Amino acid sequence: VNIAAARAEGLARRILEAEGVAAEPAGIQARWLVEAELRGHPSHGLQRLPMVVQRIRSGVSSPNAAPVVSWSTPACATVDGAGGLGPVVMRHVAALTAGRAREHGIALAAVSNANHLGLLALYVEELARDGLLAILTTVSEALVHPHGGAEALVGTNPLAVGVPAEPEPFVLDMATSATSMGRVLNARRTGAALQDGWAVDAAGRSTTDADAAVALSPFGGAKGYALGLALELIVGTLTASALGRAVTGTLDAESVCNKGDVLICVDPGRLAQPPRGESVSAYLEAIRHSLPTDGEGPVAVPGDRARERKRRRLDAGLDLPDSLWAELEALNPNLMENPA
Amino acid sequence: VNIAAARAEGLARRILEAEGVAAEPAGIQARWLVEAELRGHPSHGLQRLPMVVQRIRSGVSSPNAAPVVSWSTPACATVDGAGGLGPVVMRHVAALTAGRAREHGIALAAVSNANHLGLLALYVEELARDGLLAILTTVSEALVHPHGGAEALVGTNPLAVGVPAEPEPFVLDMATSATSMGRVLNARRTGAALQDGWAVDAAGRSTTDADAAVALSPFGGAKGYALGLALELIVGTLTASALGRAVTGTLDAESVCNKGDVLICVDPGRLAQPPRGESVSAYLEAIRHSLPTDGEGPVAVPGDRARERKRRRLDAGLDLPDSLWAELEALNPNLMENPA
Repeated sequence: VNIAAARAEGLARRILEAEGVAAEPAGIQARWLVEAELRGHPSHGLQRLPMVVQRIRSGVSSPNAAPVVSWSTPACATVDGAGGLGPVVMRHVAALTAGRAREHGIALAAVSNANHLGLLALYVEELARDGLLAILTTVSEALVHPHGGAEALVGTNPLAVGVPAEPEPFVLDMATSATSMGRVLNARRTGAALQDGWAVDAAGRSTTDADAAVALSPFGGAKGYALGLALELIVGTLTASALGRAVTGTLDAESVCNKGDVLICVDPGRLAQPPRGESVSAYLEAIRHSLPTDGEGPVAVPGDRARERKRRRLDAGLDLPDSLWAELEALNPNLMENPA
Repeated sequence: VNIAAARAEGLARRILEAEGVAAEPAGIQARWLVEAELRGHPSHGLQRLPMVVQRIRSGVSSPNAAPVVSWSTPACATVDGAGGLGPVVMRHVAALTAGRAREHGIALAAVSNANHLGLLALYVEELARDGLLAILTTVSEALVHPHGGAEALVGTNPLAVGVPAEPEPFVLDMATSATSMGRVLNARRTGAALQDGWAVDAAGRSTTDADAAVALSPFGGAKGYALGLALELIVGTLTASALGRAVTGTLDAESVCNKGDVLICVDPGRLAQPPRGESVSAYLEAIRHSLPTDGEGPVAVPGDRARERKRRRLDAGLDLPDSLWAELEALNPNLMENPA
């Protein structure tokens, strides 16, 4: 089905409200799911809504709980998400952390007990638009094998970085796995082959057979492994949350979500020296206008393509799989209008 | 020639002292070069000493200058390295930043006008041994092409992360390029082929011909490019230093070194909640003892192999190429004893 983004967002919000979620958290969660659809990350899009609802019903998510923010120093907070929705907790935390960064130059929040954050890009993009440099990371279930290993022991641990720039901020948002578990599951359903380098079998050898895959590979070999593990340790050290195989609750409906999240904000205005070189924006423009690989399209800066997809989908609407639509309908048939 | 590490360090120190470098900065610079040799990173080892000396002679390095540290907030410093030796400036900055992190939970230093930092691992390892989480990054000359691009526009921008753990801290230290320019230059000399994925030709296509290579590739494709660029922007934004092709002075003897460096330290003790999961150290041990890829050796954690190499070389001595020895001898023949 094709549905306008605003309408999809309204429906998602009303589905959540029907589960007892207050208007504000329902609106934030709905926006985060639809932004992921707009930017071309359906794995963080509306297909997660049924899980969000089931987690509320099973009591492992407390969508109306207020996060408890404790500033152990003026620049450092530990946050108990109180089982709240990830976007609701992190958006609140981002606003507070931004305020502290403006005061102290830098601020950090170490969050535990919040549900799946969803699209990381949106948090750091909003912060970068407000003039702040932002670094955000979080931990997932252990799905990735160590470089040279055969067992899934590290999360897909994404990293997001937002840097103020004109006309648009720089927005990096990437998992440290070579692919997502969603793609492997999809290949299992359709019988398609995996790309070489995406996953390993039980002997730790790269496999293109989705049924034989037991762990995702880190992107970029030893370096991607090292980066993903570093992020897991940063989060584990600062939030005292679960690590490795002990992590639960971002992929299922019944487990408490026990991973942590870490946000660092820096206000460049509290540090700046007179610019001595090319500005960040001019540098990014030079990259965009540099010579592309022979036969390829223009060179992109992280964030460009997602922004372009969003522009297109705001015009053309979201194309959602019929099966997803049926699933959303099943959540609360009274709320769904016929989109056709 | 084979030479004991302590002796190599003493010789390097004396070569620097003969150039007018005071005992303390000479000792720090010498230690940084020899640590790189010990850990198996000769590109950051004694082969850099002739360049360090030439830069002092040409006046673009001021080895006895004192860095000027300005705390714009209690947790944020801008540092003018005053043209000092990289390890001398950064070690000083690391100690001050660590102290501020202990007070305020987190602290950041944005450094400009310091020479090449050398081995990043050593700074973050020392900080992690002192109980601090440390993130350090710096920028190099533009040697890496954007993903999908054909021009060298991004630095090899390394990232180092230290995390306290027992029995040894976690130490990540990696460039965001797939290989080093040193390896490409070496392949040009010997006529050896490059590995596929290391570099591209003028059309932006992967090449194994070292003579045709015009830019290093980022590690891990689009994600490695995004990471390297994010680091360049973080440094550029916070230090107002040069970006991209404007960066000079880490590979030559005549240019002022105009890149920046950024260090963030966090004191987990100012944040910790009661641990709820497996501890970081136990998690790392579990990874080390996990199932390796069929036929491979044990799984390693970043820092393990460098530590093992260091142990071996402290016993067996450093094997330096004869040509390097001759070069060091030429710097100051009076100081060099026959190592045999």
